[in-house]
Amino acid sequence: MSSIRQYNFPTRIRVGLDARKEVISTLKDQGLSTPLIVTDRGLAKLPVLQDYVTVLQEAGLQPAVFSEIWGNPVTSQVTAGVEAFRAANADAVIAFGGGAAMDVAKVIALMIHHPGDIFDYEDGIPNGRPVDQAIPLIIAIPTTAGTGSEVGRSSVISDEETHRKRIIFDPRLLPSLTLLDPQVTLGLPASITASTGVDALTHLVEAFLAKGHHPLCDGIALEGIHLVARYLAPCVHFAQRISQGETLSQAEHARHIEARERMLEAAMMGAVAFQKGLGLTHSCAHALSTVCDMHHGLANALMIVPCMEFNAPAVPERFARMAQAAGLEQHNSQAFIQWLRDLNQDLAIPATLADAGVKEEHVHDLVKWSMVDVCHPSGPRDVTEEDFQQIFHAALQGKSLVA
Amino acid sequence: MSSIRQYNFPTRIRVGLDARKEVISTLKDQGLSTPLIVTDRGLAKLPVLQDYVTVLQEAGLQPAVFSEIWGNPVTSQVTAGVEAFRAANADAVIAFGGGAAMDVAKVIALMIHHPGDIFDYEDGIPNGRPVDQAIPLIIAIPTTAGTGSEVGRSSVISDEETHRKRIIFDPRLLPSLTLLDPQVTLGLPASITASTGVDALTHLVEAFLAKGHHPLCDGIALEGIHLVARYLAPCVHFAQRISQGETLSQAEHARHIEARERMLEAAMMGAVAFQKGLGLTHSCAHALSTVCDMHHGLANALMIVPCMEFNAPAVPERFARMAQAAGLEQHNSQAFIQWLRDLNQDLAIPATLADAGVKEEHVHDLVKWSMVDVCHPSGPRDVTEEDFQQIFHAALQGKSLVA
Repeated sequence: MSSIRQYNFPTRIRVGLDARKEVISTLKDQGLSTPLIVTDRGLAKLPVLQDYVTVLQEAGLQPAVFSEIWGNPVTSQVTAGVEAFRAANADAVIAFGGGAAMDVAKVIALMIHHPGDIFDYEDGIPNGRPVDQAIPLIIAIPTTAGTGSEVGRSSVISDEETHRKRIIFDPRLLPSLTLLDPQVTLGLPASITASTGVDALTHLVEAFLAKGHHPLCDGIALEGIHLVARYLAPCVHFAQRISQGETLSQAEHARHIEARERMLEAAMMGAVAFQKGLGLTHSCAHALSTVCDMHHGLANALMIVPCMEFNAPAVPERFARMAQAAGLEQHNSQAFIQWLRDLNQDLAIPATLADAGVKEEHVHDLVKWSMVDVCHPSGPRDVTEEDFQQIFHAALQGKSLVA
Repeated sequence: MSSIRQYNFPTRIRVGLDARKEVISTLKDQGLSTPLIVTDRGLAKLPVLQDYVTVLQEAGLQPAVFSEIWGNPVTSQVTAGVEAFRAANADAVIAFGGGAAMDVAKVIALMIHHPGDIFDYEDGIPNGRPVDQAIPLIIAIPTTAGTGSEVGRSSVISDEETHRKRIIFDPRLLPSLTLLDPQVTLGLPASITASTGVDALTHLVEAFLAKGHHPLCDGIALEGIHLVARYLAPCVHFAQRISQGETLSQAEHARHIEARERMLEAAMMGAVAFQKGLGLTHSCAHALSTVCDMHHGLANALMIVPCMEFNAPAVPERFARMAQAAGLEQHNSQAFIQWLRDLNQDLAIPATLADAGVKEEHVHDLVKWSMVDVCHPSGPRDVTEEDFQQIFHAALQGKSLVA
């Protein structure tokens, strides 16, 4: 019976302008009043968070804010968040942020009523503790269109000592409700819009290419690629114009909202799709954040081109379908990879790893961390240490892998 | 906040040759031993059911069989099924069949511990009774690749007196486990393979065209269309050759299994996708089964071409995307509709409603029933009584609606 394959689907999603305000009715319906808003240091300083706190207060809720999250999530952030939850006598968790805040928020919720150490709940470890206690209500409001962690059942938290990324997985880490509200992404800077957007695209592409069998995820991934191809560049271009002090016309503002909303959906779809699996771009990106503390989305954006050049010969017909989904004229690997290259340039993603501060002497460690990463074995082509070396060198110099 | 839109996803699916046998471990794991296999009269006579009963018996289970289902499901079939469940002291329901058996099985399970009349649980009625009692475990094993009822949360049951189709809906009617096993569809006659296959295609097409907003369903629908375009004709052609006494080579048999498996997935994907909505083809098909007791899949197959001719002007860009998903050279409405026409012919679907026994004098009632059906308002173009008249006349004569 080894040919039998399985798949499942998650979550409740509500999408639209002002969807974030539905937290109010959701909490009140459940007799809850004191949410801990888990967010990051950057957001804590911005009006988008302050305004949200005010909205909740004016509705009669008593929100507390925990914002000691920065960089890639580590255990001490979770521990501090659990303390903040207890100090506030909180009764729900609102994950308000990008991937890091989402990941930390979910594990804070997990650790409220579960004993022991965070990594006692690591996915797949021998003698791990069971997730069998209550978990406070988790509502997710993503403020970037990137990781899609709002529909995920896992969190990636790094061990503070070893720097190793470890995965906490449980179906109950899935937020009960995800609110996709373009209002909270309208003010994102162009650079973050770009790198998180390519992160979403990388999820969609690697999910579609992953070896796992999941036709629903395949369809979702292709539709997500279709959305990214149509809406990511407008988001970044509007953000660039806003940062240059331009005022958008009413019609442009409406198109900006529409584009932001579609990108929130594309990012969510990426995370739904990647339950099928990911691939080597993610292994490289995980290594870059471990070794160089690089932002995950930027790391994916910098690695996707050489990684796809590596994958293409293994599954050309899959690349043809992605090219079709992206609306390209030519339906083949070359066209799709050129599109990725052009998109990065259009979005003002740095051209090379070197431009992002990575140095030749990092390559040894990057290869080492990539090899032990869990993602690349899901990809369509086996990767050796030498392959990773060539891929990192190509990315470092912005050269084609196949040239 | 009227612009906020919501979507959800269902179920656990296992797919592969011999997946049906996983009922054994699933029941045993839950301490269950006496499933009621709910199936239809036709299947009850075939080796595929007999063999399955034997497999379960040999594994130490005590299956009972209820097979008093034929035509379109009606209330008395449910009542008889509930009695059979009680008489057998059954503890689980296995829905083993096409859409009718699935629909009846789910409502049998509902009525085991719920008081009152079946239609007290009709979707959306005032003063309906709540679904708040236990429901026995439901496992679904579809024996056609058509309705996708195995991943649906509703059943359509006709009122015996008024012939009106009524919908029983509750999330808990979703089977806990769906087993997609190509073994049980390998022996389907070509004609049933064809009509159920076009039924699945109609779900995918109408879901993609429906006005509702659901990008995950859009992607799933397009991927399903891609699968139907690739695998439905081979299923029918293999079935035709088998019925002519030919023996398939080992390689052909493997391709037959593969095609059947992909079509089971496409059908399941159709039902996942149509939570987004359906359209006027389904309104016509529901009228045809009410007025002429026509098989639902056949009815969809006979109506889809004029209905899509009607829809195309409203959403040409959506037709272009479906043409692309089907792998056609031209990406436009005309090409997609011609493909539907050619496919019907290739599958030996009757060319006209007249060929299927419908007469001019039925049109009045068909239009009347179509108008009151709940599906067409979800479609991309509003339909009047006169539109339905023209559509039925086109289908009756096999003529183009736009000619």
